[in-house]
This record gives sequence, C-alpha cells and structure tokens, in this order.
Amino acid sequence: MASSSSSDSSAPQTPQLRKDSVTNRWVIFSPARAKRPSDFKSKTPINPNQQQQQCPFCIGHEHECAPEIFRVPPDNPDWKLRVIQNLYPALSRDIPAAEEENNSDSGRVVVNGFGFHDVVIETPVHSVQLSDLSPREIGEVLVAHTRRIKQLMSYDSIKYVQVFKNHGASAGASMSHSHSQIMALPVVPPAVATRLGSMKEYFDQTGKCSVCESNSKDLLIDVSAHFISIVPFAATFPFEMWIIPLDHSSHFYELDSEKAVELGGLLKLVLRKMSLQLNNPPFNFMVQTSPLGENASQLPYSHWFLQIVPQLSVVAGFEMGTGCYINPVFPEDAAKVLREVKVSPSE
Amino acid sequence: MASSSSSDSSAPQTPQLRKDSVTNRWVIFSPARAKRPSDFKSKTPINPNQQQQQCPFCIGHEHECAPEIFRVPPDNPDWKLRVIQNLYPALSRDIPAAEEENNSDSGRVVVNGFGFHDVVIETPVHSVQLSDLSPREIGEVLVAHTRRIKQLMSYDSIKYVQVFKNHGASAGASMSHSHSQIMALPVVPPAVATRLGSMKEYFDQTGKCSVCESNSKDLLIDVSAHFISIVPFAATFPFEMWIIPLDHSSHFYELDSEKAVELGGLLKLVLRKMSLQLNNPPFNFMVQTSPLGENASQLPYSHWFLQIVPQLSVVAGFEMGTGCYINPVFPEDAAKVLREVKVSPSE
Repeated sequence: MASSSSSDSSAPQTPQLRKDSVTNRWVIFSPARAKRPSDFKSKTPINPNQQQQQCPFCIGHEHECAPEIFRVPPDNPDWKLRVIQNLYPALSRDIPAAEEENNSDSGRVVVNGFGFHDVVIETPVHSVQLSDLSPREIGEVLVAHTRRIKQLMSYDSIKYVQVFKNHGASAGASMSHSHSQIMALPVVPPAVATRLGSMKEYFDQTGKCSVCESNSKDLLIDVSAHFISIVPFAATFPFEMWIIPLDHSSHFYELDSEKAVELGGLLKLVLRKMSLQLNNPPFNFMVQTSPLGENASQLPYSHWFLQIVPQLSVVAGFEMGTGCYINPVFPEDAAKVLREVKVSPSE
Repeated sequence: MASSSSSDSSAPQTPQLRKDSVTNRWVIFSPARAKRPSDFKSKTPINPNQQQQQCPFCIGHEHECAPEIFRVPPDNPDWKLRVIQNLYPALSRDIPAAEEENNSDSGRVVVNGFGFHDVVIETPVHSVQLSDLSPREIGEVLVAHTRRIKQLMSYDSIKYVQVFKNHGASAGASMSHSHSQIMALPVVPPAVATRLGSMKEYFDQTGKCSVCESNSKDLLIDVSAHFISIVPFAATFPFEMWIIPLDHSSHFYELDSEKAVELGGLLKLVLRKMSLQLNNPPFNFMVQTSPLGENASQLPYSHWFLQIVPQLSVVAGFEMGTGCYINPVFPEDAAKVLREVKVSPSE
C-alpha cells in the first residue's frame, strides 16, 4: 500500500474541488458553509430498537417471511442469521433472463427485470444492531454475503451483485430489525461502470491500482493486519469512510472466513466511532466490487472496498442536476476527528 | 419533434430496466413494490407559507441579505424579484480562478473553489409560491436566470452554470421564502459531461438530437405552442417531468422573453398538477443545459430542458452503490395520471 506524498493534515479554508481516480467525480469541499468538523451530529439519531411483537424478521416469525435461501447454522431453529427472499423484490426471479431490446433509432434500451433481491437478517434479536455483534458474528454476516454471491454467479445473465445496508428509516430502511440486502442485476450498473473505467484508465497510465494508492497518513482512520479504514480523498459525503483490504483483491466474494472476522472487527470499530461522534446517525453501507463476468478473477486495476456513509445531509437540486456533491467537511479533518474518537474496549 | 413508434399506453406488470440516450443511465421500473400510480402522495406536504417576521428575503429586509446583483424593476424599492449573492456560498468569487493541480501519479485532481453562488428571490411576498405567480411573472423569473447566466459567461474560467430550485426543507431548501439558485462552476460537472457524451454518441449514430426524439404520445403530459411537458422514457424518479422546447435549442440562456412567458405558463401548469395529484410535495427543478465553453452556440446534439422532480422517495444504499435508481411508477402510467389531472382555470 503506497503512502501519498501529502501528509499535511491542515485542510484549506477556502472552497476546493477534488476528484480521485476511483470515482472520477468532482466534489466541492466548502468549509465556509459548515460548522467545525467536530460539531457535525445527526439530527435524526436512531434510537435503540425496542423488542417488537410484530416483526417478521424476529426469531419465531419465520413463517411471516418470504422463502428462506439458507440459515446459519443450517437446519437449526436457534439460528444466528438467515438469508431470505425479499417479500417486495425490485427484480423478479420468475421471468425470463434479461433480453436486451435495443431500439437504436429511438435511443431507447429495455431489458427484462430479471434478477434477485434477497435479505440477510443479521441477528435473531430485534434489539441488536450490527455494531452490537462481535467481530466473529459480523464476520459471519459478511461470509453469508459472499456465499450468496457465489450462488448467484451460476446465472450467466447476472452481471453484478450489489450488497448494501440501509440503517434507519431516513436512510431507506423499511424494517428496523437489523438486516442487509443483496441485489443481483442483469446489467453492470452505471456507477460501477464509471468506477471500473476510471480505475482502468489510471492503471493504463501508471501501472498502479488506484485503490491501493488511496491510502495516505492524513486520511487514515484505523488499521488492522489486512485492512485499513480511511476517509477518501474526494469523499462525496461528510464523514464517508472506506474500509479497504491491504492486499490487492478484485472481488469481495474472495474474502475468506478468517479475514472476514478481522474485517468484522474493523467494521464494528468504524460503526461505533461513527455512532459516538455523529450521534448515532442513520447510515448506508455498500460493497464496491467488480462485475461477475470479468474473465480474470484478479483484475490488476480493480480492488473492492466497503463504503460507509452516515446520513447527515440532503441530496437536493444542485446534486441532482450536476451529479456533483457539496461536502462541508474536508476529508483530512474528518479523518482526524474519527482517528481520535475514543471507543471503550469491545465486549 | 418526432413521435415514437410506441404509443401503447399500458405499462408492463413485471419489472423492467430502461435507459435512454439522454441520461444513458439504467433505471429499474418495479411496479410490484408500489401502490397504484394514482395512489402516490407526498407524506410530507408543504404547508402554505405563513407571513414571517424574521425572513431576510421579504421586502423591507434587504439589508439582512448578502449584496444584490440586480432587481426587477431596476432601482425600485417596490421590487418584484431580486438576484442576490448567497450568504453561505458553496464557491467563492474572492479567490483566484480555478487552476487545475493534477497529480497524475496519485490520480488526485484539485481545483480552486472559484465560482459564483447566487439566489433569485422570486417574489417579495413570503406567502407566495412560484406556482402562485402568473405565467408572465414566472417568465420574469426565468429571464432573470438567463440574464445572470449571460453576465457569468464573461468569466473564462466558468464552464457551466446550474440553475435549480429546492422547494421544501426535505428537498434541501433552508429558506421557505420562494427562491431559486444559480451556481457557476469552474468545471463541467459529471452528470452534464455524461449527458453531453451520450447525446453526442446518439447524434453520431443517427444524425438526430436525442431530446428532440424524446417525445411520444404515451409520455406526453401537456403541450403549448413552443414547449411540451413529458415524463421521460427512463425517468429516474417517480413522476419526474421534463419541459422541452420544441425547436432545437442548445442553451437555456437563449430563451427570449416572449417564450419565457409561454414556458412560465407550462411550468405553472406542471407545478399545479404535481401539487394537486401528489399532495403538494417538496420538489426540485433543474435546468439541464449545455456547457458555456462550447464553440458553436447551437450544438446539433445538445438540447436544453427543465427537469422537475417531486420528492416522493428516499435515496438509499442501492442507489448510492450502483448509481441505478428504482422507480415504482412506469413513465406511461405517470404521464397518463398527470395528463388527466383537472386544473381549475388559471388566475
């Protein structure tokens, strides 16, 4: 992992536009609009979940859910996690696989909405959040993600699998019971295609992987044996964080169960720091990985990472119109704040 | 304006992915998740504004605002609209013009945050909304936008001007007094570059303008002499609407004052229909136009339009991860609902 030449941790006080070679997207950093970096707090914190009678994700309510795909441990009524179908899937597994219908004259392209939309119930207990789980248990959730991706790879028409988590109603979660989602798509989605193209261009120019290069001292939050957490150089959102495997790796599904426990520990630390510093905000996390159809299992330019985004701001007309985001917190400042959060010893 | 071959107004009942040659972005249409198209209503409607004592945008409070750029009518204390600087600009007009600092080895690009961020106060009266204004008054707001763009064109380092409106707190408006914003950028923003590239590719393949081609009977809402309102074929958001000039035109700033009144009338109609049908939702509108630096004033492949987006859904992990949006309402269904909204005669 290369260290950047810049290790100056004092962020500039005038607005600045930045882009990096991973997302290749301009972001406006505008400190004048903001309070001090340490003053950022969620105005809509998530309250601890009360035990709920009516939750279909709770243990004992399995019959209220869509069909199960697998559970851990298998065949055990006393399960630790379950992977199930989404009761309201955005894509359908019951229609013919995607056939592209390209009307080149009108410029309109249509594809059948074939795909999979699954849910990972991360714990049997309603009041438990992902960050309450042990590193080993979080690792088991991550391994469930990779196991489901490997099953979905058997469908030729599935081009990309998006693993993500919405935590909190304003971050898009319709259920408060801790869960993540897995969506298997018949196309490579636009942000993934852009990211891959940008990383390939950088590799063609420099012979290096842009994610391997994204580490630098002033952006580092924490480090473990095989992973680091950073604030990216051109973070789209305030306090956005990435967890990156230190060894170059193109596909999230290649994560082994031992490293998954280590990643679980670092993810737990990131989530606890975020919760303490930012007043338990709603958040999203997204696995950013490579399309399934790529020939080589190791692409020299593509490197998976976890993106974690606390929900502190509103996407409005400027962002919708331009695709350009305004971030009031310089990444160096966010990283410094997050480095210094004191977390009590993990249970 | 070409009419599409497809005039079938019954939308399919299974999920479908679509993209068009304007945004070139996959959108998942997923009716199974949704209620009927006519059942969509905002859960956070905007209440009529009460007169407010403390609003700096109200007439008589001009001294509480950042400096004025111009007002209409000029030099008149009894103004109808004012263009002022934003008190909390995202970009600074007081620093050197953008100098690109490209560290090609690290892949990091930095540009000075030089630019302009202005506010158009659309009415002197706090309780008046944009859709309450007459077509002529809305036309004057649009002409103020074009006049300010023409002033900003004199700066060589300004590459793109984004005109937009946030209406309602959850759509990003920090002030409830009716206003829009004008932001002049030292770069061509990512969504604009993507749109231009996509429109150029379509033109190179077909010799046609993709926006001129985007009209079809089943997507049409309303029509006036020189403009149409439509739901786009691959609408990113439920009930997203575009107002398109029928005559090919690359730059919004070329709108003349006569056509601005006509556009004001169609925009008023669209806003009133949206408000009636969708329970007065928060919304954004964005002018989608061409970069300033383009050589020819008429680019054969680029055609400006107004994009209007009611805020009915939350952007969550899937959309952030993939750049792919899930729209629960097929555009043909949204257009049919909007065509049929009965609006009482305009005041």
